[in-house]
Amino acid sequence: MNNITLSYGSGGSLTHKLVVELFASAFKNEYLDKLDDSAIFRLKGAEYAYTTDSFVVDPIFFPGGDIGKLAVCGAINDLASCGAQPMYLTTGFILEEGLSFDILKRVVFSMAREARKQNVSIVAGDTKVVPKGKVDKIFINTSGIGIVKKRVGLSLIRPGDKIIINGNIGMHGLSILLSREGFSYKSTLESDCNSLWGIVKSLLNSNVEVHFMRDPTRGGVSAVVNEISIGSGCSISLFEDNIPIKPSARHLSEILGLEPLDIANEGKMLFFIGARDAAKALGILKKTPLGRDAAMIGEVTSEAGSKVYLHTLVGGRKILGFPVTEPIPRIC
Amino acid sequence: MNNITLSYGSGGSLTHKLVVELFASAFKNEYLDKLDDSAIFRLKGAEYAYTTDSFVVDPIFFPGGDIGKLAVCGAINDLASCGAQPMYLTTGFILEEGLSFDILKRVVFSMAREARKQNVSIVAGDTKVVPKGKVDKIFINTSGIGIVKKRVGLSLIRPGDKIIINGNIGMHGLSILLSREGFSYKSTLESDCNSLWGIVKSLLNSNVEVHFMRDPTRGGVSAVVNEISIGSGCSISLFEDNIPIKPSARHLSEILGLEPLDIANEGKMLFFIGARDAAKALGILKKTPLGRDAAMIGEVTSEAGSKVYLHTLVGGRKILGFPVTEPIPRIC
Repeated sequence: MNNITLSYGSGGSLTHKLVVELFASAFKNEYLDKLDDSAIFRLKGAEYAYTTDSFVVDPIFFPGGDIGKLAVCGAINDLASCGAQPMYLTTGFILEEGLSFDILKRVVFSMAREARKQNVSIVAGDTKVVPKGKVDKIFINTSGIGIVKKRVGLSLIRPGDKIIINGNIGMHGLSILLSREGFSYKSTLESDCNSLWGIVKSLLNSNVEVHFMRDPTRGGVSAVVNEISIGSGCSISLFEDNIPIKPSARHLSEILGLEPLDIANEGKMLFFIGARDAAKALGILKKTPLGRDAAMIGEVTSEAGSKVYLHTLVGGRKILGFPVTEPIPRIC
Repeated sequence: MNNITLSYGSGGSLTHKLVVELFASAFKNEYLDKLDDSAIFRLKGAEYAYTTDSFVVDPIFFPGGDIGKLAVCGAINDLASCGAQPMYLTTGFILEEGLSFDILKRVVFSMAREARKQNVSIVAGDTKVVPKGKVDKIFINTSGIGIVKKRVGLSLIRPGDKIIINGNIGMHGLSILLSREGFSYKSTLESDCNSLWGIVKSLLNSNVEVHFMRDPTRGGVSAVVNEISIGSGCSISLFEDNIPIKPSARHLSEILGLEPLDIANEGKMLFFIGARDAAKALGILKKTPLGRDAAMIGEVTSEAGSKVYLHTLVGGRKILGFPVTEPIPRIC
């Protein structure tokens, strides 16, 4: 590989390769080596989660959200998936010369609104302005710190664990695609962009056996379950007919020839729950506003080879791989 | 103001206005309100500093450093200036499609080298790739967390405090300018890009009365002392003939019509020291490799109006304002 292609940022197999072969090897340390959504460190007797994400979504306003809301939700969800209560965020703006001040204001107020709603403080920031044409409108980085309330991790995953998702898949990626210029297909699809600490907290507080959580963003469910299967050394079975998806999203994916499991979500979490507690966990999620359509979509198995199998609607079974290319670039 | 101009990112008066009128008002909270280089928060009985910075420097390799080293040093220096020992960093990459893998590798290894040298861990990261032409090569965000070893702050600044800088000014901004395409002036000037926790630590460990520290990056010494004078409610006198600058830097500034005090540094710290301890502090700094050319360049006065005065070489006195425009865009 001589040049960076879009697929290196897709969340799929090339991203995984880049992270493992370059970043993790150059920066090598016990925190990064875990390749979780946040690093976990211990200081003065307490455990913290620490994460970062850059946002380059195009367009910056889309049905259900905007780059500002996305940047706050993204940081919060990366902390939540590590069992951490989000506390403090930072934000770095890179602005294109000539950007309208009104657009910046809308984005900033959207960030402020989401942060306030989630009871987190944006405590530090930075702004760079680059000449026109050197960046596309506005890019935002957020980093976040949270306090770990319950330690979860790949090493806790066991064969038999049930996999629950809190609702319909594919909505974020598809709504971004629909709002791209020149795309004339009409749909009521909206991004699921939302902060998930609330539903994570309700599960943790109920003492169900949560082993692992991960939000299936870039690369969708496919990328995340493949990473988890490799990281945990277990195989995973997903049951296609249990996977919640709106008919409009399924229909649009079919037209576009996209696999819904490869499409990014921004308000979904995959929960790996001890078998005994799975029904209880599903019941708790279904009572929350962001978990009404929750469903049990798969399970961890002891099958050798760390593979992900998709049990299809027609009764077949196929291997679900990492999405290799980038079906929809710049979705976050 | 209807559109963002380069000057909003200059570190000068328009940046100050944007931060105060938009960001600080939208995100309003006790941490951000202080407008320090890092936010300080207390968790479980310990005090932490938390900072973020994005780097868009052009070119990405320059004499004395590169965007990767700069990104690590920048985060470390923002923490150090708050009296905090840097512990953990995160990094977010935004890459342009088509970037050569070798360039990315050089940048990443440069970051890794500087982090290791400074004994900090890069614990989490994120990579986005955007289509060709939507970003200029590579932008990097770093955030950082440190443990506060000594609390310093604007409120500790007193009339009589001496202002010390650890060496020659203007080297970073000028070396960036010289390495821009089409610039044929020959010079041996190199960026001063360096991590400053080492010299900060040697001062803090010696128990001299350090009241405040700030690294004069964007907007140079001018922007920083003006912010400090407003923030502390004190006036500041700088003595032009005490300000260390290499003849080559002075000469180049004159040719270009630039005020050296407005030019960015990336390896300098301004120390505000209780008068009694100033000579001792200067002596300690001069014994460190990054403080050999340290000098006492000014003092805090009780003069009304929170103004910065420059006592010139020829015996005059003039007000030194915020740099208004951006003399050299994309220097960090």
